[in-house]
Amino acid sequence: MLALYGYYRSSAAYRLRIALNLKGLEYENIPVSLLAGEHRNEEYLKLNAQGLVPALKDGGLTLGQSMAILEYLEETRPEVPLLPADAAGRARVRQIANIIACDIHPLDNLRVLKYLKGDLGISDEAKEIWYRHWIRLGFEAIEAMLQDGASGRYCHGDTPTMAEACLIPQLYNARRFNTPLDEFPTILRIEELCNSQDPFIRALPENQPDAS
Amino acid sequence: MLALYGYYRSSAAYRLRIALNLKGLEYENIPVSLLAGEHRNEEYLKLNAQGLVPALKDGGLTLGQSMAILEYLEETRPEVPLLPADAAGRARVRQIANIIACDIHPLDNLRVLKYLKGDLGISDEAKEIWYRHWIRLGFEAIEAMLQDGASGRYCHGDTPTMAEACLIPQLYNARRFNTPLDEFPTILRIEELCNSQDPFIRALPENQPDAS
Repeated sequence: MLALYGYYRSSAAYRLRIALNLKGLEYENIPVSLLAGEHRNEEYLKLNAQGLVPALKDGGLTLGQSMAILEYLEETRPEVPLLPADAAGRARVRQIANIIACDIHPLDNLRVLKYLKGDLGISDEAKEIWYRHWIRLGFEAIEAMLQDGASGRYCHGDTPTMAEACLIPQLYNARRFNTPLDEFPTILRIEELCNSQDPFIRALPENQPDAS
Repeated sequence: MLALYGYYRSSAAYRLRIALNLKGLEYENIPVSLLAGEHRNEEYLKLNAQGLVPALKDGGLTLGQSMAILEYLEETRPEVPLLPADAAGRARVRQIANIIACDIHPLDNLRVLKYLKGDLGISDEAKEIWYRHWIRLGFEAIEAMLQDGASGRYCHGDTPTMAEACLIPQLYNARRFNTPLDEFPTILRIEELCNSQDPFIRALPENQPDAS
């Protein structure tokens, strides 16, 4: 039995909920409250030395880092693939996923926003401009990539992949901070398609047991 | 023939130089000057819509995002593997690599430092504290992980992997900003081992044609 240590609003945990649901895998959902600082507890640090969510437990193995976990699930539970079969397609999907995982999300997550406000003393307005800036840059690149002919109904072909597992949580965050999204019609079309389906709906932050 | 569009000081390009050298792959080294803004030229944007380095050209295919490219090289040129054979080991290596690629480097790269200084007006001192802060957090987690018994001479076992391809450039950056590293003896031991070897030496920023 798989166990996911997450937090309803963690965008990286949300990626894994989508992937687990798409693959039809059952898992125990174990909330770790970032607000209460539970990710810095000694017990949790034993599971994940980095003290971040998510972590995935698979029998005696515990893993951190959502992108490494997505690859692990793909290798150990390949029945519903979230990567295409060809190397070029796989690279394209990983490229889209990593634009989000490496170039948007790390700059906009809670610990960074806290540093900007607490340690650097920037205003709420400057924080929101920062937040939207990195989303816009990344989404501009993704929207351009989606015009290259390899997209179908989804970012790549006609089934959801790791690209959607990253994109949908990032869109959710973008909306929380009122990021303008009109320039990204293809991204919005894919969002609508995903969010009408059960694996994505069950993964929504508000549908988690720790949502408040 | 492979072609790497990079910049001598780009840490993400440096990862790929290490991987290409470890795999014994020849490639054309095409400098894209970040200082001169060549990554925002129309011609380069056609290759990489995101306007970042590195990009890898393999025949008619051009890819961006260094972590996606590392996986692509692993899938298409598997002769010298940079991931272990077992899924748990592969996940552990990717976890270490992604602590750097997702949680350190995105916060400390040139475009972010420029934003902090230019748009947010923070001091050089505050910028250096920021820089070292994210390195320290990530390296603390990696140093802890390296005590778990799966490490050998390298981060994972006795041959270099994607973990070193990410770790060595991050250490290079850490030194540029005088980040204290004494707390990380295992990381330093692995650095010394790597930097005594030809594939890592040839990948050093100062050994690139565009180094200045």
